[in-house]
Amino acid sequence: MPNTDRRTLANAIRALSMDAVQQANSGHPGAPMGMADIAEVLWRDYLQHNPANPKWPNRDRFILSNGHGSMLLYSLLHLSGYDLALEDLKQFRQLHSKTPGHPEYGYTEGVETTTGPLGQGIANAVGMALAEKTMAAQFNRPGFDIVDHYTYAFVGDGCLMEGISHEVCSLAGTQQLGKLIVFYDDNGISIDGDIDGWFTDDTPARFRSYNWQVIADVDGHDANAIIKALEQARSDSQRPTLICCKTTIGFGSPNRGGSHDCHGAPLGEEEIAETRKALNWPYDPFEIPAPIADAWNSVDKGQTLEALWQEKLAQYAHAFPEVYAEFKRRTEKALPEDWSQTKAELLAYSRRLDAPVATRKCSQNALQILGKGVPELLGGSADLAPSNLTMWSGSNAITPSHADGNYLHYGVREFGMTAIMNGMALYGGFIPYGGTFLMFMEYARNAVRMSALMNQRVIHVYTHDSIGLGEDGPTHQPVEQLTALRVTPNLHTWRPCDQFEASAAWISALERNDGPSAFILSRQNLPQQSRTAAQEEEVFKGGYILQDCDGEPELILIATGSEIMLATDAATELSQLGTKVRVVSMPCAEKFAEQSHSYQEKVLPNKIRARVAIECGHKDYWFKFVGIDGAVIGINRFGESAPADKLMELFGFTKENVVQTGLGVIKAQRH
Amino acid sequence: MPNTDRRTLANAIRALSMDAVQQANSGHPGAPMGMADIAEVLWRDYLQHNPANPKWPNRDRFILSNGHGSMLLYSLLHLSGYDLALEDLKQFRQLHSKTPGHPEYGYTEGVETTTGPLGQGIANAVGMALAEKTMAAQFNRPGFDIVDHYTYAFVGDGCLMEGISHEVCSLAGTQQLGKLIVFYDDNGISIDGDIDGWFTDDTPARFRSYNWQVIADVDGHDANAIIKALEQARSDSQRPTLICCKTTIGFGSPNRGGSHDCHGAPLGEEEIAETRKALNWPYDPFEIPAPIADAWNSVDKGQTLEALWQEKLAQYAHAFPEVYAEFKRRTEKALPEDWSQTKAELLAYSRRLDAPVATRKCSQNALQILGKGVPELLGGSADLAPSNLTMWSGSNAITPSHADGNYLHYGVREFGMTAIMNGMALYGGFIPYGGTFLMFMEYARNAVRMSALMNQRVIHVYTHDSIGLGEDGPTHQPVEQLTALRVTPNLHTWRPCDQFEASAAWISALERNDGPSAFILSRQNLPQQSRTAAQEEEVFKGGYILQDCDGEPELILIATGSEIMLATDAATELSQLGTKVRVVSMPCAEKFAEQSHSYQEKVLPNKIRARVAIECGHKDYWFKFVGIDGAVIGINRFGESAPADKLMELFGFTKENVVQTGLGVIKAQRH
Repeated sequence: MPNTDRRTLANAIRALSMDAVQQANSGHPGAPMGMADIAEVLWRDYLQHNPANPKWPNRDRFILSNGHGSMLLYSLLHLSGYDLALEDLKQFRQLHSKTPGHPEYGYTEGVETTTGPLGQGIANAVGMALAEKTMAAQFNRPGFDIVDHYTYAFVGDGCLMEGISHEVCSLAGTQQLGKLIVFYDDNGISIDGDIDGWFTDDTPARFRSYNWQVIADVDGHDANAIIKALEQARSDSQRPTLICCKTTIGFGSPNRGGSHDCHGAPLGEEEIAETRKALNWPYDPFEIPAPIADAWNSVDKGQTLEALWQEKLAQYAHAFPEVYAEFKRRTEKALPEDWSQTKAELLAYSRRLDAPVATRKCSQNALQILGKGVPELLGGSADLAPSNLTMWSGSNAITPSHADGNYLHYGVREFGMTAIMNGMALYGGFIPYGGTFLMFMEYARNAVRMSALMNQRVIHVYTHDSIGLGEDGPTHQPVEQLTALRVTPNLHTWRPCDQFEASAAWISALERNDGPSAFILSRQNLPQQSRTAAQEEEVFKGGYILQDCDGEPELILIATGSEIMLATDAATELSQLGTKVRVVSMPCAEKFAEQSHSYQEKVLPNKIRARVAIECGHKDYWFKFVGIDGAVIGINRFGESAPADKLMELFGFTKENVVQTGLGVIKAQRH
Repeated sequence: MPNTDRRTLANAIRALSMDAVQQANSGHPGAPMGMADIAEVLWRDYLQHNPANPKWPNRDRFILSNGHGSMLLYSLLHLSGYDLALEDLKQFRQLHSKTPGHPEYGYTEGVETTTGPLGQGIANAVGMALAEKTMAAQFNRPGFDIVDHYTYAFVGDGCLMEGISHEVCSLAGTQQLGKLIVFYDDNGISIDGDIDGWFTDDTPARFRSYNWQVIADVDGHDANAIIKALEQARSDSQRPTLICCKTTIGFGSPNRGGSHDCHGAPLGEEEIAETRKALNWPYDPFEIPAPIADAWNSVDKGQTLEALWQEKLAQYAHAFPEVYAEFKRRTEKALPEDWSQTKAELLAYSRRLDAPVATRKCSQNALQILGKGVPELLGGSADLAPSNLTMWSGSNAITPSHADGNYLHYGVREFGMTAIMNGMALYGGFIPYGGTFLMFMEYARNAVRMSALMNQRVIHVYTHDSIGLGEDGPTHQPVEQLTALRVTPNLHTWRPCDQFEASAAWISALERNDGPSAFILSRQNLPQQSRTAAQEEEVFKGGYILQDCDGEPELILIATGSEIMLATDAATELSQLGTKVRVVSMPCAEKFAEQSHSYQEKVLPNKIRARVAIECGHKDYWFKFVGIDGAVIGINRFGESAPADKLMELFGFTKENVVQTGLGVIKAQRH
């Protein structure tokens, strides 16, 4: 009869992890083996979850921020009774398996977020803890704490070296996220070797400076010490807690444990055999004896836990039927019932507006209507609210004592903001949007990508979108940023030219439930365009004919955002010169690419090759549309500091240049 | 006779700053007015510099990390006697002036680095302090401390909220940069308002946790307190120092001081008049009375300082002529005298190699030769040395007690590493190179851009460049990253296919002195290509005919890096099928774009439109080369976790697909 003491149960994780990595001949055994004892205590004794329903809204969230230790999580999910069989573990890192190299949201039930890019997991966890606190503040009622759970995260040295850990842990302290509990795998090792040479922070002191409770010097291989730390962590409801656990990377491996050699490579058959002996784990690869499997299985416990909650929820539904309905809708990520009215109101407003307005202001105008109609919108900005115009009249700041707001002052933390938004979107109940200058999207770049990779409805609001911002100069003037966003898979990048297009961008972003959207907005005022009802519909197709000629065009001008007015002005002049010109507005090239071939052919007929694209951004992207025979009026160099009108002239964004370039392209075609 | 007490001298900065911002009707008066008293003490009493020679190698470095306060720096440069006239200040933020909106390296003498993107200035300062310490360790001789100066930086709340401040200040503590002294402008205000809502760190405790000396609670408007703090800072040679100065933003402005209203907008004529009164500054805009100007002027003092140093340097040159010559060469950023031999050796080695090798390994092979020949190469990696292969046999780690190394273990700090490299390149004496996975370039993205914007010779080594890395999956597999780099102005992005191209990339990167280069390197082995002498020369042109047919090609295949072997294999098969195929290798499209029209036309004749580009990256970039009628074999979605060969097949990177696509394009052209 196998022993089922805690160490043996933890060894089940160790064995599965080293065996799966060996089988794949690829992966990271060190962290799972090092953190197995901590995980055993947390998952078997504390974590409130239901393996039979990984989407139970009130489950505790568990985030493996050191995502390379994916076999730790897969082992836990398998052993706890999630839908992840031993067969799946044997397919670790194989094509289309449920066990990819890093935990991937959507591939494996029970994986709460995709981790691997270091530091972002803890940021997601902060977002989830914030979401929990705000959902609780909005929906709990006396006697009915229907939202009431912890968020747990594991982090390694890498996560804590990354700058984003500073941004989000600082904010977590300010917001007093008392139900966030983080275990630090303090094993003293990173890929280059012993961290003494490059990471000598007094990490406990650092986290105390963020107003965290810190429990230092915990033996990460002593279950009782871990229990004691967890109890202390949970007893402080005001401060997030960091539990610093001393561990041995690759614990159990006689020759590789404690060294970076076991971080990211299989142990090898021989060392695995020795590790089996050292751990007193006499079982075959992937063999989990029944008593050990039983001791791990949490299905019954989880069902009971959720049943109790469902009972409470039923009473809540009875007592507060409307609030309950809203809670249900929000957690299911459905738009409000009267969404179509809200949308109609916004579009009607957009049609009426005729004054020139900056598109950042158009976005705020849209928010003024959407904010009322879509209460799950949770806004914010990385300290640029007055510039990004992300606040509307109903914006209320979320503060430690008033968590029921709808706006977060993220501070100057672009990367942290974006990864926190990802966490909130994953949590559910909210549609996060957050602003910064388009240039400083770059600070957050990889989190923007992660929102796309995880198919999350996150809305990135980027203002000050070109040299049109003027005097702040090249450090602030985007050139290549639009391209970087447009080539990001699954991201919709909208660069509207006026209120109607800006409203369409917001509507489209809210209606898509499989990915993020980015809005690229001007600082400077832009005129409103007029449209037929058919054109209005086509705005949502991402690219459409805004202004046309009689018969077949000789020239097509393609533009976005602030350059639409240039295109239409130039088209008017060219028409007067007798040239047949079409103007295509392309606010969202990715949406346009999703349209039928016939629609695309209608807008951009293949045979018409005299094409000029005009955009205050890098030229290269546009050759996809204008080809080798067309021309692009764009910017392939850095900007300058000067008033915007001087810059537009300097960089060739003038009606005259568009007209001349257009005529030149037509002429070249005729040769 | 005007008063010339310290406050009055500081008020000269305040007046110039508010007047220039008002004249430009744009800019940030708050920080200059808040930090004027600190700046007066530092610049008049401590800063060792020579306004008549802003490039004096042993000057103290001064970095304004809160770069939006540019008028503070411009005022200081003007008042100290740099080549920056009152007329230049009147041109603040105007086109082609010496006083752009943010301090821009190369526009203004005395501006040490371009700042504005928050947190990066302090990172540059860390890089400069590291460079000073390492140059001193390499070149000082007993009795001859020819490198011996301080690096001073000003930072605001924004810099300290940014994650990068954590990365670089942590490393500065570990490396014991005792001559780095940072003033924190603790004014309690950021753009969204009072920082209590989003920034509640105990910043002194935080910096103590990094092993810094912290001098807290200094009155930033009390010159004596500032002097006392500076003395204490300079007395600790082991630890960097943070001096926390309580200040009032917009000090002197009766109605806007202390509020975010004065952060980023002109005060207005009326408030300026009131501020003049409050400050007892009765002079006209841009008027600096002679006694005040005289009290500020540091030209004589600076000349004397440098003369003393030059005297010492002359003795040093006499005592150590060879070391002196090397010091001179290094500080002048010239390549070694025997550079052409080193280059020849590397190319000869590259020709000889015939085994398949991963290009990350090719890069290390190149380093093995270059490291010996170019001792100013200062390497590093963000904790991925064993994967990036950035160490060669002569790599020696820089440690606190042994600063004379040539390799930095940056830890898991991509953004910090990159901005530190920018600082070292700006400092001179070093050519920094640093590695990470191509994906995690994104964490460092804006610092990569800054290296390009500042024309700095920084070498970015990015390995694991595509789905070819295999099992680590989509979080680690680049798709759109190559495009983002290629559209960055002034950056050369090299994706070599073998040893020769990798060596050419290194040579080209070292020989350019006006900007950075990025190397995009494979994890997997790639075959060596054979080349004629003419082809070898053309590699340096960035794009060339690697394999050609007799007569005019019917099809051109364009590829880079790991896809070259696919292109050549497919070309062989197509030739056997009777198709005339040319293979173009395009390791650096930006270099190719710099070539003459006739060379470009030779490689890619305009009339041959049957073109297929093949690259394991996003397709859109390549339409610039293949046009509307060509095809691109690329990836417009996220990757998957699986062994590399399975992925290559899944994503269509097979000889068969290239052959079929090529034939399809030819056929379509004939219709």
